[in-house]
Parts: sequence; structure tokens; C-alpha cells
Amino acid sequence: MVRAGRLPRHDRRQRTSGHAHVNGGETAEREQNRFLAALQQNLQAFLDKQVDILTPISSETRALLEAISALASGGKRMRALLCYWGWRGAGGPADAGEITTAGTALELFQAAALIHDDIIDRSDTRRGAPSVHRRFSNLHLSSGWALDPNEFGRAAAILAGDLCLSFSEEVFSSVGPRTAYDTRARAVFNRMRTEVMAGQYLDILEEVAGSGKPDGTAVERAQAILRYKSAKYSTEHPLMLGGALAGSSEARLQGYAEFALPLGEAFQLRDDVLGVYGDPSATGKPAGDDLREGKRTVLIGYALSHANRRDRAFVDEQLGNPALDPDQIQRCRAILIDSGALASTETLIEQLRGEAFAALARLDLDDVTRQALTNVAASAVKRSA
Amino acid sequence: MVRAGRLPRHDRRQRTSGHAHVNGGETAEREQNRFLAALQQNLQAFLDKQVDILTPISSETRALLEAISALASGGKRMRALLCYWGWRGAGGPADAGEITTAGTALELFQAAALIHDDIIDRSDTRRGAPSVHRRFSNLHLSSGWALDPNEFGRAAAILAGDLCLSFSEEVFSSVGPRTAYDTRARAVFNRMRTEVMAGQYLDILEEVAGSGKPDGTAVERAQAILRYKSAKYSTEHPLMLGGALAGSSEARLQGYAEFALPLGEAFQLRDDVLGVYGDPSATGKPAGDDLREGKRTVLIGYALSHANRRDRAFVDEQLGNPALDPDQIQRCRAILIDSGALASTETLIEQLRGEAFAALARLDLDDVTRQALTNVAASAVKRSA
Repeated sequence: MVRAGRLPRHDRRQRTSGHAHVNGGETAEREQNRFLAALQQNLQAFLDKQVDILTPISSETRALLEAISALASGGKRMRALLCYWGWRGAGGPADAGEITTAGTALELFQAAALIHDDIIDRSDTRRGAPSVHRRFSNLHLSSGWALDPNEFGRAAAILAGDLCLSFSEEVFSSVGPRTAYDTRARAVFNRMRTEVMAGQYLDILEEVAGSGKPDGTAVERAQAILRYKSAKYSTEHPLMLGGALAGSSEARLQGYAEFALPLGEAFQLRDDVLGVYGDPSATGKPAGDDLREGKRTVLIGYALSHANRRDRAFVDEQLGNPALDPDQIQRCRAILIDSGALASTETLIEQLRGEAFAALARLDLDDVTRQALTNVAASAVKRSA
Repeated sequence: MVRAGRLPRHDRRQRTSGHAHVNGGETAEREQNRFLAALQQNLQAFLDKQVDILTPISSETRALLEAISALASGGKRMRALLCYWGWRGAGGPADAGEITTAGTALELFQAAALIHDDIIDRSDTRRGAPSVHRRFSNLHLSSGWALDPNEFGRAAAILAGDLCLSFSEEVFSSVGPRTAYDTRARAVFNRMRTEVMAGQYLDILEEVAGSGKPDGTAVERAQAILRYKSAKYSTEHPLMLGGALAGSSEARLQGYAEFALPLGEAFQLRDDVLGVYGDPSATGKPAGDDLREGKRTVLIGYALSHANRRDRAFVDEQLGNPALDPDQIQRCRAILIDSGALASTETLIEQLRGEAFAALARLDLDDVTRQALTNVAASAVKRSA
């Protein structure tokens, strides 16, 4: 794919401008906003089409679409944005339908993963609203239906997640020849799904089996989990997918991975810190939710490796306690600070951030894409929500 | 697609033989056995390839593949067989790799649906073995892990089902150009997934909300549910998918649907009868499991419409009672017989069976395919397991 010939005129102008950086930033933001608007429209159009398919079956099944729509309309769109800039960096044209469709598929995949993840983690809130299983148990309660509202909520959310996972693939295939069976993009998409599910399994396994494994390897195990359950599909796969869709060389895809994987790991470590110390009004999740869910994160791994025996035992015991109270949360937070676990995690985030930006600097990119990726990367690791 | 040119020699010979019917049956069986062996090999090869992808992540994730493999290796393969004969009837060549791959995708889809269905229905056995969530809760127990074995089992099975659903699509796409984004086959596959999930939702909704709806419409509601949650994806979609893959005319696909939809409905009604009266050693499910799960089937719908008030109230109250004892099961069975519900269901099965065979007779088919479809249809409605 010849890159110059595919870039729209205003981008090529930027690259020869003396104010490339400043204008690159403005151009990147305008272009990104256009992409996000097109993505939202594309998502809505797809879901509207599904309404026409489901309504004849029964209007009651629209509740599934409403749940998916409510969830998928929110979020930071980090995956879609990385996919977009991965495409642009590899010479894909701005405002192309294919990349909007691929971004939509990624956001639907993310929504599907969140729906099932919230069932698994027993999380009642997501993006500041009730999680999908909670949405359906609320529907059960307000409708005065029979049997158990929680069972119904869980069952409906399993189905909503399955539907959303199918939608994700349906949309991905609809990109066309670029996502056909023998393409690099399809291979990335397949690998992404398999790795996320394997990573999620390691995560739930660690919750139940981690306590019996050596504290000294807790950090290492937590790092493997965050890589597969989160980092790869949040940053590496979306960026590579965009590049692959644009017909990128393998060398560029490799460069993308070198930037995106440490970025994704830093992103998830930041998420882990927010899961314990985040402001509920900003994260949309109750305080200490990760502790209550028993997430054995890198942050926790450091505490289990470095805290004194009494503190270690306390943390180990409280992890996964659904009735964890504010005092217990406070004591866990203090232990994470006193043991140096929080500081070690921040150091690791800083180190990974450094690796990511060094890899970004090595990438051969036009100014607009470089600026855009810099922005996405900065907000991934500095965010407060 | 020119049909004669693509059929293998022994089939073309059959069609000109004076003993077409008898030999057609033998030929159909031999060909079907070859297909089933190829399908099993294809499934195993795909799952073996996944072992190579998952093992580097962690050997512990192989438990997901083992669960999928154990489940997907069993079963009657009705969906794959209908797909195969739909292909053959529309002129697809025998022993073609594409149709083996498509059949594998259908069987993986079926496995994914069963994994999640068993979580939703709280079914502990499937095909005579522990269901996937029970398999994982058993693993938890035998490993002496922490926290709740049932929660872990359910979470792992959600992930195993997601992985299997992704595998199904990965395999379907790998068929190649015949399942590309703009093909009829892809449209059938997409529609199949959406309709199953919508039908499953109606099923769980009926469990909780059915009691508050008029008894007089219970049969009609149950028929809509069985059509979408079971009949279409068990028979109609697989047969049409096979036809579409072979480049069938729309007229033939329509004819396939006219045969397969009543067949699928009769199949599910037979399943409902077995769910209450089946021999556990043949069905691989405990006696009365459907009653315990609270399935509001057509059989139950007839009882709610026709039984006396006291009996109706008893059935309504016991449906979904997880502690249902043998005496209560026996009384429910008696009510279903005394109210005429069982006889009405058998009459409906007979009527649908008649419609299906009449539609089969109208189809333009070679003798081998006709014989094969006759066999599949007969065992779908006469089976005892």
C-alpha cells in the first residue's frame, strides 16, 4: 500500500508545515472527533437494524438491545481510537468506512467482555450505571416477576453478552475483503478473542487458587494475567488490527506491538490502582470494589511479597470478602502504601510508560498520527477514571 | 452450480440404479459416516491447534479446551448432518472440506449454546456427564481451592462458552469465500445466532413472567419460544446453511425451510416430552429435570390450559422448584396425562411430522440425499434420547 497516495490532502500538508506539531495536534483532534461521531452513528445504525430483526420475534427481546446499546454508547473508545490511528499510521485514508466498522466491532467486543466480566466479578455498577445483570434484575423486581431476580439478571446478561459477542463478529466480517478468512486482520481478531478469554480464566483461577501459591511469585502471576486479560486486547490488538487492515508491513506491526503492549500494561496497572484508590464519582465504580471482588492484581502481589506477615495475612483474608467495610478497605489501602506496594506499582507504570513512549518515538509516523497516539497513550496512563 | 458434474461417481450411479431406494440408503449411510469421521477429525485438529495457542499463555488454560472438547465430541450431530445434506441436495460435492468445516462451526456453536444454557438452567448433567460449570466446580473442589466452587464453576463456564462461541465463528469464517461477508451463508449464520439468543431470552422471561400471563395463551407463547430458541437453529438454519454454501437457489432454500421448520418444532416437542418422561439412562439427564428447571413448554402450556384449577395451580407452583421430589414429579406427570396435555403434544408432533415429510416429498432431491434426510428426520422425532 502506497501511503502518500492514500492520505487526505490536509494531512500531507501538515507534514510539510513548519508548525507540524501544533497543527498536528489540532488536526488530530478534529479528525478523531469526526471518527468518533462516525463510530457512534455506525453503532447506532447497526443496533437499529437489529431492532427490526428482533421485534418480529417479540418486542420483549428489545430489552437485550437496549442493554447493549446503553453500555456500548459509553466508554472512552480507547480501543477504537487505537485501531483508527493504527490504520492511519499505516497509510489508511481518513474517514474510511472500513475502519469505522472495524472500530465498531472492537467496541462491541469490549461491551460483550464487560457484560460477562461484570457477572463474573459480581460488579453491580459499570460506567456509573447498573451493570447489565443488575439492569435485568432491576427489571425483574420492578415488574414483580416470579422466582429469583438475581438468577434472572445473570441469565439475561449471559444472553446479552453472547448476542453482543456475535454482533461484534458480524460487524467485523461486514468490513469486507479486508477481514476475510485469510487476512492478517482476521488473524489478529481471532487471537484477540482467544487471549482475552484465556486471560480472564487465569484471573478467576488466581482468585481461588492464588492464595495457595507462593507469595513471592504473586507479582509475576498478576503480570501474566493483566497482559492477557487486558493489555493485549485493550491496546496491542486494536493498534495492530488497524495497521493490518491498512495492509501494514510486518515490521510496522511489530513496532506497533512494542509501543502498545507496555502501554496496555501501564494502562491496566493504572486501572488496578484506581480500583483501590479511585474516586467513585470519577471511576463509576464503588470505592474498594477490586478488593471486594478479590482481584489479585500486581498492586496486591507487591503487598503480598513485601508486607509483614500480619499485614499479608490481613490482605489475603480480606480479598474477595463481599462484606468488606470502609474500615477494612482503609486498612488495606494503608497496608498497600506502608509496604511500598503502591510505590512499586507507580514505579512500574512509569517504567512501562517510558518503554511505550520510546517505542512510539522509533515508529515511522506522520505528525498527525504521532500526535494522536501520544494523546491516547498519555490519557491511558494518567487517567483518573 | 452444475450438480451432476460435482457429484462423485458412486452417487451418480445410484441415481440410475433400479435399486435406488435400497442402495440409496446404504450409500447415504456410508457417505454420512465418512462425513462424521471427517467432522470429528476436523474438530479435533482445530482444538489441537488451539492447545498450541493457549499453552504458552499458561498450561492451566487447557482446562477450557478440555471442557469444550469433551462436550463437542459427543452428541448426535443433527445440525452438522442437516448442513451436509442441505449442501449435497443443492449439488455440493461429497467429502468436500468446506462443508466439513461448516459442520464443525455448527457443532461448536451448539456446544457454546449448551454450555451457557446449562448455566442458565442450572443443569448439572449434559450428555450423561457433568455439565461444563459442574465440571469446573468439581475441579475447584478436588483442588481444594478457596472461595465458592459454584461461583468459580459458573464463571469458568461463562468463559468456556464465550471461547467456544468465538471458535465457532473462527471456524465458520475459515470456510473461505463461501462464508464471506456478502454471502447468503453468512446471512443465515448471523440470523441463526441472533434468533437463538432472542429465543433463549424469551424462554427465561417466560419462566419468571409466564405465571402472570393468561393460561389460555401459554401454548402459543411456548410455541414461539421453541421456534426461536430451538427449532430454527437445530434444523432450519443448518439445512439452509448447507444449501446456501452450495450456491442453492432461493426457491430451494425456501423448500428446505418448509421441511425443516416443522421438523425442528416436532424435534423440540419430542425433547420436551423426554424432559418429563424420558429415561435418564437414555437422555443423560435426571428424571423430571425440565420441571425442576421450570421450563414452560408446550406440554406444560396444554396442561395449564386444560387441567382443572387445582391441578393447574399445582403445576404452576411446582415449576422451577429446585427441590422437586419424586412424588411431586409423579403427580405432575399424572396431571399432564389426565389433562390430555401429553396426548395433545403427541398429536401436534404427529401433525408437524406430517407437514415436514410432505415438504420433503415436494423437494427436488437425488435419491441418496432424500434417503439421508428421511433418516435424519425420522430419528429427530422418534428418538428416545
